[in-house]
Amino acid sequence: MPGTQKLTENELHIAVENLPDWRLAGGKLHREYRFSDFVHAFGFMAMAALEIEKLGHHPEWLNVYNKVVVDLTTHDCGGVSALDVRLANMLDSISQKIK
Amino acid sequence: MPGTQKLTENELHIAVENLPDWRLAGGKLHREYRFSDFVHAFGFMAMAALEIEKLGHHPEWLNVYNKVVVDLTTHDCGGVSALDVRLANMLDSISQKIK
Repeated sequence: MPGTQKLTENELHIAVENLPDWRLAGGKLHREYRFSDFVHAFGFMAMAALEIEKLGHHPEWLNVYNKVVVDLTTHDCGGVSALDVRLANMLDSISQKIK
Repeated sequence: MPGTQKLTENELHIAVENLPDWRLAGGKLHREYRFSDFVHAFGFMAMAALEIEKLGHHPEWLNVYNKVVVDLTTHDCGGVSALDVRLANMLDSISQKIK
């Protein structure tokens, strides 16, 4: 799939600089979202799920009540790829639709 | 809330015996579900989310592609309560609706 090549150290550095709410953790792109309650957190996940399936690239995500913790990596390349960066931006954009 | 008292060791033992796909892990009721793909895994989560919200008791659950990993505990009592057992049974019942 296009965009699944592992980013170089330099590309990764630039990508993380452009994703201020994300950081690298255990070699993955990591972010925690907090919403007002479970309904909003799951609403975010449901909106995201449709886009995720369309993208064909899936996150590792954990939900506890109002919290959604996301880790992104690309299995095929054993690291972070451009597709993870795209998914991170997509999730950020969807999260902004939830008040 | 009724059912949120911590189960005794004996009650917990009986509860886990009656939930053959669950085990205790880190003081929580733990189960991994596997579905055929992301659509089915998220379909399970979406069906479950509506019941979870009705129950007013929320799981810690992690999704990666076709896998959903669930940990249940009751914050108020610092352990496993009857409400966790009820939620475990509810999740099992919903998972059986997904082919």
